[in-house]
Amino acid sequence: MKVFTLQLKNEGVTLTAYLPDSSSEMPHMSSRRAILVIPGGGYRMCSDREAEPVAFKFLAKGYAAFILRYSLCENAEFPKPLNDAEEALSVIRQNAAEWGVNPEKIAAIGFSAGGHLTAMLSVAGRERPNAQILGYPCILEKISDILAKPIPGADKLVDEKTPPAFIFASAEDNVVPIENSLKYAGVLDQHGIPFEMHIFQKGYHGFSTAEESVYDKDEHRAYNEDAAAWVDLCLRWLDKLFGRYV
Amino acid sequence: MKVFTLQLKNEGVTLTAYLPDSSSEMPHMSSRRAILVIPGGGYRMCSDREAEPVAFKFLAKGYAAFILRYSLCENAEFPKPLNDAEEALSVIRQNAAEWGVNPEKIAAIGFSAGGHLTAMLSVAGRERPNAQILGYPCILEKISDILAKPIPGADKLVDEKTPPAFIFASAEDNVVPIENSLKYAGVLDQHGIPFEMHIFQKGYHGFSTAEESVYDKDEHRAYNEDAAAWVDLCLRWLDKLFGRYV
Amino acid sequence: MKVFTLQLKNEGVTLTAYLPDSSSEMPHMSSRRAILVIPGGGYRMCSDREAEPVAFKFLAKGYAAFILRYSLCENAEFPKPLNDAEEALSVIRQNAAEWGVNPEKIAAIGFSAGGHLTAMLSVAGRERPNAQILGYPCILEKISDILAKPIPGADKLVDEKTPPAFIFASAEDNVVPIENSLKYAGVLDQHGIPFEMHIFQKGYHGFSTAEESVYDKDEHRAYNEDAAAWVDLCLRWLDKLFGRYV
Amino acid sequence: MKVFTLQLKNEGVTLTAYLPDSSSEMPHMSSRRAILVIPGGGYRMCSDREAEPVAFKFLAKGYAAFILRYSLCENAEFPKPLNDAEEALSVIRQNAAEWGVNPEKIAAIGFSAGGHLTAMLSVAGRERPNAQILGYPCILEKISDILAKPIPGADKLVDEKTPPAFIFASAEDNVVPIENSLKYAGVLDQHGIPFEMHIFQKGYHGFSTAEESVYDKDEHRAYNEDAAAWVDLCLRWLDKLFGRYV
Repeated sequence: MKVFTLQLKNEGVTLTAYLPDSSSEMPHMSSRRAILVIPGGGYRMCSDREAEPVAFKFLAKGYAAFILRYSLCENAEFPKPLNDAEEALSVIRQNAAEWGVNPEKIAAIGFSAGGHLTAMLSVAGRERPNAQILGYPCILEKISDILAKPIPGADKLVDEKTPPAFIFASAEDNVVPIENSLKYAGVLDQHGIPFEMHIFQKGYHGFSTAEESVYDKDEHRAYNEDAAAWVDLCLRWLDKLFGRYV
Repeated sequence: MKVFTLQLKNEGVTLTAYLPDSSSEMPHMSSRRAILVIPGGGYRMCSDREAEPVAFKFLAKGYAAFILRYSLCENAEFPKPLNDAEEALSVIRQNAAEWGVNPEKIAAIGFSAGGHLTAMLSVAGRERPNAQILGYPCILEKISDILAKPIPGADKLVDEKTPPAFIFASAEDNVVPIENSLKYAGVLDQHGIPFEMHIFQKGYHGFSTAEESVYDKDEHRAYNEDAAAWVDLCLRWLDKLFGRYV
Repeated sequence: MKVFTLQLKNEGVTLTAYLPDSSSEMPHMSSRRAILVIPGGGYRMCSDREAEPVAFKFLAKGYAAFILRYSLCENAEFPKPLNDAEEALSVIRQNAAEWGVNPEKIAAIGFSAGGHLTAMLSVAGRERPNAQILGYPCILEKISDILAKPIPGADKLVDEKTPPAFIFASAEDNVVPIENSLKYAGVLDQHGIPFEMHIFQKGYHGFSTAEESVYDKDEHRAYNEDAAAWVDLCLRWLDKLFGRYV
Repeated sequence: MKVFTLQLKNEGVTLTAYLPDSSSEMPHMSSRRAILVIPGGGYRMCSDREAEPVAFKFLAKGYAAFILRYSLCENAEFPKPLNDAEEALSVIRQNAAEWGVNPEKIAAIGFSAGGHLTAMLSVAGRERPNAQILGYPCILEKISDILAKPIPGADKLVDEKTPPAFIFASAEDNVVPIENSLKYAGVLDQHGIPFEMHIFQKGYHGFSTAEESVYDKDEHRAYNEDAAAWVDLCLRWLDKLFGRYV
């Protein structure tokens, strides 16, 4: 596997690529699905807990993976972060042949504020992903209070080019109210955009993969453990959406 | 196991009990969790596909099971079906000791119109279940169009005595719009009622357990298969809610 | 569902039938697969823990289920128990049409001493099941020491009519040494009989379904929990063997 | 993540490291479990299908991963490949602190000929892994016929320092007879070495992770699919063996 980091246009913005080795033994994997991982952190940081551990879940299913670290804090004013995400997608598609990626099978996954950015990329991006996966996403304009900069509501911008969505969250999330996911799903439904949504009762905000490798207290791990089911549910949903390699 | 059918008060209404044998080898199972199964069918019929195949999933996890066949067609006017469900719960609780059932660990599960009845029992019943499980439920008053009789909207009646809810459905359901589940979840959230909700993208209305045993065409089975995940998700959710036997 | 118990020829021997209701909504289920459950108990008893909880796992997948309680203690001398099992199979097949059972898709499952009886039925029965499922089985003649009566070794009788086998056990079983399963698998392999075998490291002898409903101490449940995987593995194996309903 | 390749002592022998980034957000992961992946290929090649796709399954569960490409063909005479594996383990343990690896939680996993090498490392290595995972392994001396060089039988060398084993294979394997796994399990049992073994009925020799990403014909994927269960079974077994991070 090759792992390397590209600097994107905006200051401090990077795209890290995880490209599995190609092999003459697996010729059908020479044009892989890809996942663009967009971590959360209130537009103030990009959480490591929502970066590599997530990318690895997709590597394990044969995906090429990319992690975007986007404009934060003072630089988080829209459309800057959106431009970062557009650029990331664009770079991946331009290098698709060289990197062994299928440019029409790229899903973006984002968490919390990163879920907002992923949704924005999906509803308003010049460049759009082929699927959007949103983990306990910030969606509504009114959630701006807890973020580094005010955000546009992604629910207001859904259009007919918006790709299918997979949403997961916990109902007891006390940082980003579940209303964000419910409203977004409602709007997707109104626009006829295919979606799947899994709301677990329990799960701390930021549960990521909800496994021991991201949670360091046993009571946290136990509280979150049922939410870990999103990973397999998501991979199966993508299998249906993207179809077989062979 | 004992299997027997009781006639309830209203004409043609029955409660069928499935009571696993007790055994001195498993003394901790002498007071079992119970499931009250309420099949759907537009208040015109009670679908067999949502009756025994569902009850068996719970028997397999140690539950006692009950199937309610309630007032239909001309007799479906509210509150008649609600009274049937209240009576069913009441009968189970009155016989709990004799039947080896824990009267405070009774979940009700309903599908489509039966999901409406389960929700009504949960929000407006004199007698309430300890958990409500709703499969692609009718909730909103405006869905009355497709039912035998007009129904009250369950979303308008949620109160502080409403038990925790587990909702599952498919986004592509073209009989009962997914709006029904989304709205109900929103109201539960506003009232602080714990809930979990799994909306699969695909699944025909009436997918029941989504397995081969209820679906007789291979393309139907394949279309529904991902939705089958609700069963294990639901059983785990109940495990957390009801706690251990030991 | 109909549940009823037949007296077989030998004294105290019974066959209990669990026949799901047929329905015009599920015409493809009018000729179901069947499972014959043969509990263990050292040929001294038939354990309830390996009776209904096991039958329910198969009911939940659309099978008709039967539990055999066979000749024990003073009456356990071979071939008496074998004759009981042959009679049970014969009764099921003779009544297959009436009971809604496919007479060529009947699997037998036995545990410990019941595993021995299931293996004997499979290698030496006048009437044979279409699949044998053996849980921590007694196989070897030398295990006779712990049983009510000496047994013939099932490993010595494997022939070309022996049906495919699914074996599960735990390596740490300190009652029936794992050698029993290993030797039996070796002989099946030599005779070209298809088999699958899952040996879990941990699991008390008699773990049955390895779930809370059969284990009443938390430390026992925790020790056994990984072994619970045999149920789904077995149901999938049978799916492949018996093919689709539709 | 850092990915880099070290040259080991013997000609053409390499160890490729996959080291996830450490993060102050996940301090409990600063000393990770590790997996040493030893691909198969008859001591004539190291199959890519049993290299990265396997390493990624463990990365996805929080492990650091290492792939060993060992002495082949003319250089495959024992103890050369064993020395390579010993050196690999030794290098990992010497760099454990720097690489963020727990030197006492290193499992080795090998496939086919690589399974032989993993077993040899476990029974006869100067340096031993903390767990051995063997996929459809060559074990017996008589399997030498199909390999580049004659091998010592690993079954004859099991000693009291041999670590716990997890074995998986398919009964229908027509390249490496299942006798290899059965015999090895029998010897482990005789020596009191903890083991778990999963023999699937179906699965082509070399099924690796048995997923679409390693199998490029749909009929192959379908034939192998049940064998894919080994991955989760193995990860759970290791969880029990190595205990919690927290």
